[in-house]
Amino acid sequence: MNHPGERLADLGEWELLRRLAAFAPAGQFDDDAALLNEREGRTLVVNTDVLVEGLHFSDATMTPADLGWRAAAANLSDLAAMGCRSVVGLTVGLVAPASTPWRWVEQVYVGLDEALQRYGGTLLGGDCSGGAQRLLALTALGHLGHGPIRRSSGRPGDLLVSTGPHGLSRLGLALLLGELAPEAVSQALRARAIEAHRRPLPRLDAVGALIQSQPPGHTWRVAGTDSSDGLVAAVAGIARASGCQALLDHAALPLDAELAGLPQGEAWCLAGGEDFELVLALDPGWAKALVAALPGATLLGTLAAGQGVAWRQGDRPFPSCCAGFTHFR
Amino acid sequence: MNHPGERLADLGEWELLRRLAAFAPAGQFDDDAALLNEREGRTLVVNTDVLVEGLHFSDATMTPADLGWRAAAANLSDLAAMGCRSVVGLTVGLVAPASTPWRWVEQVYVGLDEALQRYGGTLLGGDCSGGAQRLLALTALGHLGHGPIRRSSGRPGDLLVSTGPHGLSRLGLALLLGELAPEAVSQALRARAIEAHRRPLPRLDAVGALIQSQPPGHTWRVAGTDSSDGLVAAVAGIARASGCQALLDHAALPLDAELAGLPQGEAWCLAGGEDFELVLALDPGWAKALVAALPGATLLGTLAAGQGVAWRQGDRPFPSCCAGFTHFR
Repeated sequence: MNHPGERLADLGEWELLRRLAAFAPAGQFDDDAALLNEREGRTLVVNTDVLVEGLHFSDATMTPADLGWRAAAANLSDLAAMGCRSVVGLTVGLVAPASTPWRWVEQVYVGLDEALQRYGGTLLGGDCSGGAQRLLALTALGHLGHGPIRRSSGRPGDLLVSTGPHGLSRLGLALLLGELAPEAVSQALRARAIEAHRRPLPRLDAVGALIQSQPPGHTWRVAGTDSSDGLVAAVAGIARASGCQALLDHAALPLDAELAGLPQGEAWCLAGGEDFELVLALDPGWAKALVAALPGATLLGTLAAGQGVAWRQGDRPFPSCCAGFTHFR
Repeated sequence: MNHPGERLADLGEWELLRRLAAFAPAGQFDDDAALLNEREGRTLVVNTDVLVEGLHFSDATMTPADLGWRAAAANLSDLAAMGCRSVVGLTVGLVAPASTPWRWVEQVYVGLDEALQRYGGTLLGGDCSGGAQRLLALTALGHLGHGPIRRSSGRPGDLLVSTGPHGLSRLGLALLLGELAPEAVSQALRARAIEAHRRPLPRLDAVGALIQSQPPGHTWRVAGTDSSDGLVAAVAGIARASGCQALLDHAALPLDAELAGLPQGEAWCLAGGEDFELVLALDPGWAKALVAALPGATLLGTLAAGQGVAWRQGDRPFPSCCAGFTHFR
């Protein structure tokens, strides 16, 4: 696999991460973030994200304060996906050309600060540099609420839970980019979708509900990840790491009713990405208790013996957006 | 100071950091890294550095494995400058164009891994992205050995200590860039200087010596920083934060004898930068005990009432490279 002339474009992100994982302790790259044991059993979680202008953000679709919020939210979502309930803080590496207005940088920090004000934690420090292109490299630190959430903890018979609806962020992006005319959706949905895209909410609160709904006597075993790369990607990641097949219930897609009426609605729900909800696989009793306790949370389907992702209902094919997940590559 | 049309180029790095510090708790940006108190009194230290191709590194002067080592070393040096003796690990944000050879990325990680093998800690995780320009954003985590080292802890009467010589890294860069002919220095110095530039050694070991040389009954009070930005910049940073004047002993410059014979030798010692030694201000008894205990460590001068940096010997002027530090801006 390792040819002298290989370029990153030949590898793709997953193969690149697989190769880089060889430099870390076994299993270290399997989850959304790293766990560090402190004394007295408390566990620190650390996560690094890089956001590059033109790839991950654009002045065309959000203000710099939205960017700061979003960068923090994406990073805190990875903490939530590991089981964090509280945030210690963030470090920020900022790169920008010398011609960048100070006001742009200031507003990015205003957005970062708004997210930290809402979720707790402080700006811990950082570094600044010139560079050809604007980008942010954030590292977030948090503490586990109770136990860890791992992609690999699922078992056949588990129920799949989503902490909220999917597809809104992608709808918001489509509206902002003009892919979809504003009048294609109601004013209320338009506002919700744009807010979902610009100001996503990391689900640290859902970790609290998860802990509180743990049935008495039940040991801590929670499989999960966040849906930053899309709902089916999240489900597929759990299925693969857990050595299971994920069966999704088509009638139970976590899809807004109005969005379901759009031609793209189902595809955006399955693969739009950046909704930053948690997708979990839990023992049925716990899953039902969580859905009862957490408004907006829904049951999606089950884990079963096998591999890949499929509909629970017979031979209904997945839309082409998700074909890559139905059988593992 | 805050004009609508201001650009980052108008501010400079220090003013930019000063403004960003307003988003963090008071004092958080004053030192090389952030302190986080864990339970049981152990203190975690976190530091983020960004290295951008063309500004901080170049294929012309080092291999990708050197770059990986150097990036880790620069980041671990900030941990040492806070008083860390042990390393928990690193997260790595890597940005590179899709045309980048995999072999380049692999070798960067080989160098990072070599540094972690030497100093302890593991690769904790990270993120990869495409981008216009190669860059690394590293976050290092470590634990304090005993107490913190802060720029602001100096007092008049303290002695200034350097943990090693200065100017070698700049000499190495000059040789690699062809600014200086190879035959201008001996083969032994050439090899040392190029090694100092490509494979700098963060002084976590010096923190161990500092702890061991603490005189009995002496409370922990250690002022210091690392010399990544140059020896005089380090001394000036301590003087400014401590509200003192730093008086340097010209006869005691931590300068290799052969390097002292070059026309640029003294300027490179004072302002070359990237030697990654620790510069400390300590009670005289402790300073002398440390210099006796740590091979290569030397006394540089003293802190006194006043401000800025000056020679202890009367009216000898600082070379122009350091004029900005003699009186605080």
